[in-house]
Amino acid sequence: MGIKRRSNPVVEQDGAGGGAEDLCCREDPAAAGGCGVWLGAEAAARGGNGARRFVSQRVLVESDVTAGIATIKFKNPPVNSLSLEFLTEFIICLEKLENDKTYRGLILTSDCPGIFSAGLDLREMCGKNLAHYAEYWRAIQETWLKLYLSNMVLVAAINGASPAGGCLMALSSDYRVLADNPRYRIGLNETLLGIVAPFWFKDVLVNTIGHRAAEHALQLGLLFQPTEALQVGMVDQVVPEDQVQSTALSVMTEWLAIPVLRFLSECLRKIGNDPTVSATSFSLDHARQLTKSMMRKATADNLIKQREADIQNFVSFVSRDSIQKSLQVYLEKLKQKKH
Amino acid sequence: MGIKRRSNPVVEQDGAGGGAEDLCCREDPAAAGGCGVWLGAEAAARGGNGARRFVSQRVLVESDVTAGIATIKFKNPPVNSLSLEFLTEFIICLEKLENDKTYRGLILTSDCPGIFSAGLDLREMCGKNLAHYAEYWRAIQETWLKLYLSNMVLVAAINGASPAGGCLMALSSDYRVLADNPRYRIGLNETLLGIVAPFWFKDVLVNTIGHRAAEHALQLGLLFQPTEALQVGMVDQVVPEDQVQSTALSVMTEWLAIPVLRFLSECLRKIGNDPTVSATSFSLDHARQLTKSMMRKATADNLIKQREADIQNFVSFVSRDSIQKSLQVYLEKLKQKKH
Amino acid sequence: MGIKRRSNPVVEQDGAGGGAEDLCCREDPAAAGGCGVWLGAEAAARGGNGARRFVSQRVLVESDVTAGIATIKFKNPPVNSLSLEFLTEFIICLEKLENDKTYRGLILTSDCPGIFSAGLDLREMCGKNLAHYAEYWRAIQETWLKLYLSNMVLVAAINGASPAGGCLMALSSDYRVLADNPRYRIGLNETLLGIVAPFWFKDVLVNTIGHRAAEHALQLGLLFQPTEALQVGMVDQVVPEDQVQSTALSVMTEWLAIPVLRFLSECLRKIGNDPTVSATSFSLDHARQLTKSMMRKATADNLIKQREADIQNFVSFVSRDSIQKSLQVYLEKLKQKKH
Repeated sequence: MGIKRRSNPVVEQDGAGGGAEDLCCREDPAAAGGCGVWLGAEAAARGGNGARRFVSQRVLVESDVTAGIATIKFKNPPVNSLSLEFLTEFIICLEKLENDKTYRGLILTSDCPGIFSAGLDLREMCGKNLAHYAEYWRAIQETWLKLYLSNMVLVAAINGASPAGGCLMALSSDYRVLADNPRYRIGLNETLLGIVAPFWFKDVLVNTIGHRAAEHALQLGLLFQPTEALQVGMVDQVVPEDQVQSTALSVMTEWLAIPVLRFLSECLRKIGNDPTVSATSFSLDHARQLTKSMMRKATADNLIKQREADIQNFVSFVSRDSIQKSLQVYLEKLKQKKH
Repeated sequence: MGIKRRSNPVVEQDGAGGGAEDLCCREDPAAAGGCGVWLGAEAAARGGNGARRFVSQRVLVESDVTAGIATIKFKNPPVNSLSLEFLTEFIICLEKLENDKTYRGLILTSDCPGIFSAGLDLREMCGKNLAHYAEYWRAIQETWLKLYLSNMVLVAAINGASPAGGCLMALSSDYRVLADNPRYRIGLNETLLGIVAPFWFKDVLVNTIGHRAAEHALQLGLLFQPTEALQVGMVDQVVPEDQVQSTALSVMTEWLAIPVLRFLSECLRKIGNDPTVSATSFSLDHARQLTKSMMRKATADNLIKQREADIQNFVSFVSRDSIQKSLQVYLEKLKQKKH
Repeated sequence: MGIKRRSNPVVEQDGAGGGAEDLCCREDPAAAGGCGVWLGAEAAARGGNGARRFVSQRVLVESDVTAGIATIKFKNPPVNSLSLEFLTEFIICLEKLENDKTYRGLILTSDCPGIFSAGLDLREMCGKNLAHYAEYWRAIQETWLKLYLSNMVLVAAINGASPAGGCLMALSSDYRVLADNPRYRIGLNETLLGIVAPFWFKDVLVNTIGHRAAEHALQLGLLFQPTEALQVGMVDQVVPEDQVQSTALSVMTEWLAIPVLRFLSECLRKIGNDPTVSATSFSLDHARQLTKSMMRKATADNLIKQREADIQNFVSFVSRDSIQKSLQVYLEKLKQKKH
């Protein structure tokens, strides 16, 4: 969908015919290819409740077929930075889940303790050629468009810090549950790094917390602690750290079980038995999806209509000598710090 | 104003010359024609305080000429559904009140216990021809445009449940007072019915409670109980059930008596005595009306500019075989339920 | 920049070459010309801490060079009305501060007890010719555009009532601190005066407190007491009257010291030592400025693109016979009241 897939050994097993079904719909571990790898042992341990588990190198996918819920766990240590390889795997997983009617809900969470995602990977922006920068930015855009416009219900189980691009992924979900740990701050803090958040990051923040709060937060690059994040509307719920996953699952269950009026429900069942009536034409999920699209289309279109210009802006900014030198210094210092 | 009036015995007494004055300005009961019928006894009971009362078949209009306040009570039992006949009478009443300078404020409330309005009338959408569906949708649009752009101050005295179209009428007012009864829920719950709220319903909700809360409420088709409705900003005040009407009246009185500075008030009186100065040019009401229009014009224009396409969308959706069958089943079940 | 400067004895000393530096950068009192006059005694009293003080007739400028903070005190007694002379001096001061890299922050406050600013000066709108009305309105627009789009951090230290145009100046700042005095009410109360707030006043209010609250406030011309103003989001902080200035200064210090991560800070220092790297290209201030512009550009452009039409609207409104007579009566009564 615009993003050229990078070479990725696991992904390339996918083959030409690899479609959405490959990742998540095969019950036979041996047949599981693509970026998903069946974890037979764990699945077996869960017994016959329909739970399955897939994993790619950096994007771990668990799924509960019966409930229609998939969980993506970011696994790009140490900080789940959005490297091009991570994004490529992530986009493929999203596409496959999106096209698989089994899944109506998707939970986003982290497999790396203490960090949801640190956002953009500076190494993708330093010492590469212009084509690489363009490819990288297109992948960032693609990731956001896929998340923001997903037909699935997206719940973010935020179990760690989520600055910048990490925050964007949370904001693009339909509901956000944050662990009550003061170190897990969330926000678009680009200003703190001397850069400006892309306009579409800004659009999403304005939609979420309103114009005034967004202006304040963006100018100062504010990172909100859980209590503040809840108050300003950056997240919808703050719960003890060990309840993040269970709360996300409860919320998801509520969203998927839009409380259909009993009376209407009976009608729908009757209609469903009539072979001349298309089941989907009166589907509640379909109505929710169209409603979500109605709410988000204008914001997504705002990027889509100037997507190439946005890429060019990024490329020309990041390829400046001064920025390249700054990034080199930054990355060298980062390397020293680790040792 | 675009809506073709359906045949309506009461309305047709109106005659060619029936203008705004017919409904509300005649003190002589015998002369009262149009959709308004003078209720002599009740008016008499109120003594000489200028109170008058009119009634149409489905839209009951009471008015206090001295205060400049009219009250419309929806009377389309059992649930005040927005049938075409109801809408036609309602639009005529609104037009007449709008054009009658006597009235500066309008209170909307229900004459049916426990329900403000249940919204669209499914019977208008089932088993009719395309022209009927188009006429119906145009009437829905027209009703909203007249409410949303009214020059009068509109206060909704919400004395019952107000889902979907009932909620829209409340949201189109300038102020909302809701009875504190947990069964009186309010919201745009179209998703629960398997349909999508029209984009202009959505626009009004976003204006009222903001983008994020609207997205959440619309996706889930949330119906808010009074306390929640107040918290999210769906209504402005929640009061005990027996105080809804009196509170609405107090609010209206405040709005109509924009607290003019005493000093300015003296100036205005002096100016008013100068026959060369047009009284309206410095009218406080006029300023409030222009301000309201400035706030709402863009939202109304968003429908006006694509009004015909919106009608075509509705007609082609509702005339689908699958939708017609669904509605038939639904209406039959509804009929059985009543017996 | 579009505004023709009126004759002003003090300003005209400025000379052809009078640029931004004249006002604020000369340490030598004797050399201080332009609209700024060096107040030697006061400056001396503050010792060698870099504090300087300038004053024009109606716009008093104090500055702390070390901190990079200027303070503008409105001094147009009795009520700091926005006369053309006041605006002209104010715009010149803003331009000079804006172009002087010394200043990163600007505090707006009043030198007149109990009033921040009463807004438009009715005397500029009465008994003058059309060209004057046009010039006046252009100055109002220019003042707002300069405030709203300033690259500096603007903090309003609101130490008095701020209706109408006074409120606009506060709303155009980045942060608002209001003295906790019930007489210091703030709001766009144009409706109370029988006029309609310009659409760009409305745009700024909607950005600040949201669509619903703005519609309510504008229709009724609401003036908010401090507690209400805080609750609705019209101001960011309410503090005891004697702490307004110190709080504004603390806030400014926080905004100017965007809490740079220690690690990034070291990188920046290292980069700063590399002569091949432009210091400004990675400047934190620059990122904040671009972010502010991203948030505000659409709102400012909304006026800019119809600026001439907005002037014509004002001129034709204010030059009506009825309005002129109203203003005459009003101003005469005002004169009597003073005696």
